[in-house]
Amino acid sequence: MKEDVFYGKGMAHVKEDYPDIYKAVVGLNEAAYTGKALDYKTQKLIALGITAAASDDRAMKKQMQSAITEFGITKDEIVDVLRVVLLTSGNPPFTKAMHILYKITKE
Amino acid sequence: MKEDVFYGKGMAHVKEDYPDIYKAVVGLNEAAYTGKALDYKTQKLIALGITAAASDDRAMKKQMQSAITEFGITKDEIVDVLRVVLLTSGNPPFTKAMHILYKITKE
Amino acid sequence: MKEDVFYGKGMAHVKEDYPDIYKAVVGLNEAAYTGKALDYKTQKLIALGITAAASDDRAMKKQMQSAITEFGITKDEIVDVLRVVLLTSGNPPFTKAMHILYKITKE
Amino acid sequence: MKEDVFYGKGMAHVKEDYPDIYKAVVGLNEAAYTGKALDYKTQKLIALGITAAASDDRAMKKQMQSAITEFGITKDEIVDVLRVVLLTSGNPPFTKAMHILYKITKE
Amino acid sequence: MKEDVFYGKGMAHVKEDYPDIYKAVVGLNEAAYTGKALDYKTQKLIALGITAAASDDRAMKKQMQSAITEFGITKDEIVDVLRVVLLTSGNPPFTKAMHILYKITKE
Amino acid sequence: MKEDVFYGKGMAHVKEDYPDIYKAVVGLNEAAYTGKALDYKTQKLIALGITAAASDDRAMKKQMQSAITEFGITKDEIVDVLRVVLLTSGNPPFTKAMHILYKITKE
Repeated sequence: MKEDVFYGKGMAHVKEDYPDIYKAVVGLNEAAYTGKALDYKTQKLIALGITAAASDDRAMKKQMQSAITEFGITKDEIVDVLRVVLLTSGNPPFTKAMHILYKITKE
Repeated sequence: MKEDVFYGKGMAHVKEDYPDIYKAVVGLNEAAYTGKALDYKTQKLIALGITAAASDDRAMKKQMQSAITEFGITKDEIVDVLRVVLLTSGNPPFTKAMHILYKITKE
Repeated sequence: MKEDVFYGKGMAHVKEDYPDIYKAVVGLNEAAYTGKALDYKTQKLIALGITAAASDDRAMKKQMQSAITEFGITKDEIVDVLRVVLLTSGNPPFTKAMHILYKITKE
Repeated sequence: MKEDVFYGKGMAHVKEDYPDIYKAVVGLNEAAYTGKALDYKTQKLIALGITAAASDDRAMKKQMQSAITEFGITKDEIVDVLRVVLLTSGNPPFTKAMHILYKITKE
Repeated sequence: MKEDVFYGKGMAHVKEDYPDIYKAVVGLNEAAYTGKALDYKTQKLIALGITAAASDDRAMKKQMQSAITEFGITKDEIVDVLRVVLLTSGNPPFTKAMHILYKITKE
Repeated sequence: MKEDVFYGKGMAHVKEDYPDIYKAVVGLNEAAYTGKALDYKTQKLIALGITAAASDDRAMKKQMQSAITEFGITKDEIVDVLRVVLLTSGNPPFTKAMHILYKITKE
């Protein structure tokens, strides 16, 4: 299942053309999302916070969409992540992320 | 209480010399850490992930220390945050953060 | 007035749905732009330089537009900011910012 | 004069061992700091803001020191730069920069 | 020749309107790409890696295109650069870069 | 061999305490450094360039040391990497990296 959740379409090409990279990314994901000390959903929220803080539109959007679709994470929970982004990373990544969130949740 | 948790010593100077900045930072912290949709501890873990991903030694160390001291966050929980850092931000910030974590938890 | 200058449309939603965040951002803006030791325009130029250096298209464009519209900052003044960006942050953010500047000033 | 202001000791080695790089950096500095549309001091403040926002200890310290020594820039003027850093780049680079500023101005 | 390879269209404006900046950028490029200890192609691959790691869409695309067109760098060579990006900078910049590479090489 | 080259001491702890993370990092390294289309040394130079551009002291120093010790990469070759850093990422990461390089090669 993790495969469907964390890999975008671009990874389909990688799987076919560069299977050794694909295997490493799968291994990396498995080591990343363990649900051991923290549950899976908390880790997803952390990933979302990191990509939002990095002001990366594409990664942010993908993280938000899978957060909502696969984990049932609510808009208010994402806003609570973005509050931390505002504090740690400033207003521009915060407003960009809010903008993307409002666009996604309206669609 | 939040005041003790989130503000370093540097903030003591700011409070005295630039009270308007201090007030804004307090307001920012209050808006950031609401414990509404997400609990306070989850938000702290997100802040820790963001500062570790940004490869910022000083902020990382402070976040880890207050995570452990104030929130009773365990080493394994921090490692679960850093797993996400490895995936989203690569090996250098991950090894730097692990290095700091091992130093802190030994002290 | 500051409100109109510094907050994008996305902030209208925040104001309505998350008034506590909105209030914190307003407080942050007020503490940021004081026009005390430095005048307001110089601070705006610094904000422009920081967002351009961070290679953030969206924030850069918004900063340039409000710089021109609200502060009467000239193209040559923005170029003087971008000269510093070239020196401190390299050629890619510089050319990206010049590209955006030329597009904006032509419109 | 610019030479003394903007180049650290490391540049002495570069000048001797890699004169072509040195020449390019000199040319870059001359193109960066023109004092045309903006005066020299304003450009220095922008450089200071960019390096503080990037959370780069070493560059930040050097910028602050030459700002104070060479341009007579005051502590309150630097704080006005850092207010913008707080807004655009978040609390960790702001507190780090305040920490460095207090250390420098005490020495 | 370097001029055609490394400067985008935006630089045409700079050349005409700000010849002193243009001259500095030319000097910078000449000092950067020397082909002395490392050959020119290796330096190009390094530039490509740095812009991909910085998650900068626009710069990444330009670097990939000129790598392919001007240096005859192959898709597999670019993938070998991106493998290093995955390790040093994490999955989001890697997948973004792979996405851009597949789009470019299909066109 | 790669193990000795790419993993710092911090990784010894990871290997013992978190073997699943260790395995993922090993897999990641193996997928990263293939020596397929590009040789191993070129990939190392790319990693060095990326960490220098990111202004990360610790990672930069480690990359330079293993570049010199394990790959026989010369000082002039590293300088040729740093020329590209100057162009793509600006003067502060360049001077920081030169500073570290001179310290390392003197030791």
